[in-house]
Amino acid sequence: MPAQVRNPDENARAQALARQAQLTKPAGALGRLEELSAWVCAVQGACPPRQFSRIRVVIVAADHGIAAGGVSAYPPEVTAQMVANFAAGGAAVNVLARQAGATVRVIDDGVGLASGRIDREDALSVADFDAAFELGRAIVDEEVDSGCDLLIPGDMGIGNTTPAAAVVAGILGLEPVVVVGRGTGIDDATWMRKTTAIRDALRRSRRSVGRDPEGLLRVVGGRDLATLAGLLIQAGARRTPVILDGVVSCAAALAAERMAPGASAWWVAGTRSTEPSQAKALTALGLDPLLDLSLRLGEGTGALLAVNLVQAAAATLAEMSTFTEAGVSDKPAEANTPPPDESA
Amino acid sequence: MPAQVRNPDENARAQALARQAQLTKPAGALGRLEELSAWVCAVQGACPPRQFSRIRVVIVAADHGIAAGGVSAYPPEVTAQMVANFAAGGAAVNVLARQAGATVRVIDDGVGLASGRIDREDALSVADFDAAFELGRAIVDEEVDSGCDLLIPGDMGIGNTTPAAAVVAGILGLEPVVVVGRGTGIDDATWMRKTTAIRDALRRSRRSVGRDPEGLLRVVGGRDLATLAGLLIQAGARRTPVILDGVVSCAAALAAERMAPGASAWWVAGTRSTEPSQAKALTALGLDPLLDLSLRLGEGTGALLAVNLVQAAAATLAEMSTFTEAGVSDKPAEANTPPPDESA
Repeated sequence: MPAQVRNPDENARAQALARQAQLTKPAGALGRLEELSAWVCAVQGACPPRQFSRIRVVIVAADHGIAAGGVSAYPPEVTAQMVANFAAGGAAVNVLARQAGATVRVIDDGVGLASGRIDREDALSVADFDAAFELGRAIVDEEVDSGCDLLIPGDMGIGNTTPAAAVVAGILGLEPVVVVGRGTGIDDATWMRKTTAIRDALRRSRRSVGRDPEGLLRVVGGRDLATLAGLLIQAGARRTPVILDGVVSCAAALAAERMAPGASAWWVAGTRSTEPSQAKALTALGLDPLLDLSLRLGEGTGALLAVNLVQAAAATLAEMSTFTEAGVSDKPAEANTPPPDESA
Repeated sequence: MPAQVRNPDENARAQALARQAQLTKPAGALGRLEELSAWVCAVQGACPPRQFSRIRVVIVAADHGIAAGGVSAYPPEVTAQMVANFAAGGAAVNVLARQAGATVRVIDDGVGLASGRIDREDALSVADFDAAFELGRAIVDEEVDSGCDLLIPGDMGIGNTTPAAAVVAGILGLEPVVVVGRGTGIDDATWMRKTTAIRDALRRSRRSVGRDPEGLLRVVGGRDLATLAGLLIQAGARRTPVILDGVVSCAAALAAERMAPGASAWWVAGTRSTEPSQAKALTALGLDPLLDLSLRLGEGTGALLAVNLVQAAAATLAEMSTFTEAGVSDKPAEANTPPPDESA
């Protein structure tokens, strides 16, 4: 049962927008940084905002039965190998976390213990779904109690873009071909197997759970998606902002928002993935990604690249001088407007 | 007379791309960061690349005679007021430079001493153009001799988007309405005056200099544009990379590349501005901006936001483990491909 999602502080958001209008720049000249700075104020409940100081990436690593169906360019054992790589600090997420001033926590959410193969059977039992969802909530409680002020959900699991696409297609009622992507870089034959797997998974789910988001996470999703949904909902319950990453975190986010409407007010989209189902999920959530660099790696990498933009937005609002402080004129240039005959 | 522009190190670029293929991620999964890391290697002449350690913003501040023609939302005295604000550290560029680990230098390139009003007279004499262009070259020599390894051109000058648009339109042979933008946020009447000013400026330049880039900088540009063109060409002569900012630096960049073909190999585009002439200049230069956040501030702010992406690209290439180092399988998942009858 989802905890109650809170609302961000709309008073702080309004103060932020009012302050933006006084800063030494033309109104609106910082573009999307201005709305982003207001979001930071709303989720921090304060204006001017602080820099985020304890940024935590939580990588949920899980295996998927569907990986045995030949839907990925990589064998399933790569999931465990990459978890070891995360621990050794050699993966992209480690490098980008250092760059962003973030730390990385890896959750073993059933590595080597694959979810059910979704083209033939449910990914999870009800009990397994509940355990995975509660794990996500518990992670947020631990992290927030330890001082985390900005969360980044990451993912690792060979085959995981297949259940992610199935969850998005199931919730939005889309055809498999609309959501299926190239994942780790699959060839045409693998793409056809992946599309077929999603089609078969959705045939099963249409009968059993329809468009129910929780049911879809259980029937065509997997442990990682269920855990991430729990994490994303609990972030809203614990007033903790989130930067969303690629297709797996956005599929979980779409389900989470449908399960707990309002949760998405605590999220910004960090990055546009090349996976079509991520774009569908973001559009449905009304979120426009800050970056569009054709990333398709997951792990939290795209969200980490966006941390700097969030911090920069907060810094400009907190540190720039106002027109009055700087003695800069904010009056329109009426005195300089020539009479009409002179400007013709 | 432009100095000779050098070529980036194509050998280092090729090494970078080969190394990217060995890192623990699917091939191409870091998207544009991969080509960006290769550019860093090419301009540094080394693979793996270093982090940039002395990043310098050079703001060229200048006044423009056309500001008296009612083309801006702000009066001309704001240029000098903003220069004081830069010195006090209260402007957006100061905040974002601190965020990016960069320092800011402000060049008084004729503040209070406006260039000629371009709808009626040439912006600069030949002697003034030469002095401004040489100033840009001298700045690069000073900065590079002081250890600068990444340059960011910035601009400040009420009215400066008008000559910038005129230069772009003149070089590319475009109509005024195609290039004119809202600048600091002008109303419709001001937009009409700005369009008329650009039209009149281009009527003059078509007769005197045609599409000659140097001539256009002199006749319909201004001191700042001439100085920035000198700076951008000399960066290529001194093997120093540049992140381009908004419409003023991109207009100067378009002229610089036409004056010294090959100079653009040393540049990346940091940001997409809302000014239409910036998009035209970037397309002509073959540069695709890293960020698209609807900024329209100049000062170097959009380029500063992109520094983190350039550094992140370099860090991933330099610090990630290879498949061999991490013991991660980079073999295709052929063993997991089921026979056709099983995948149907």
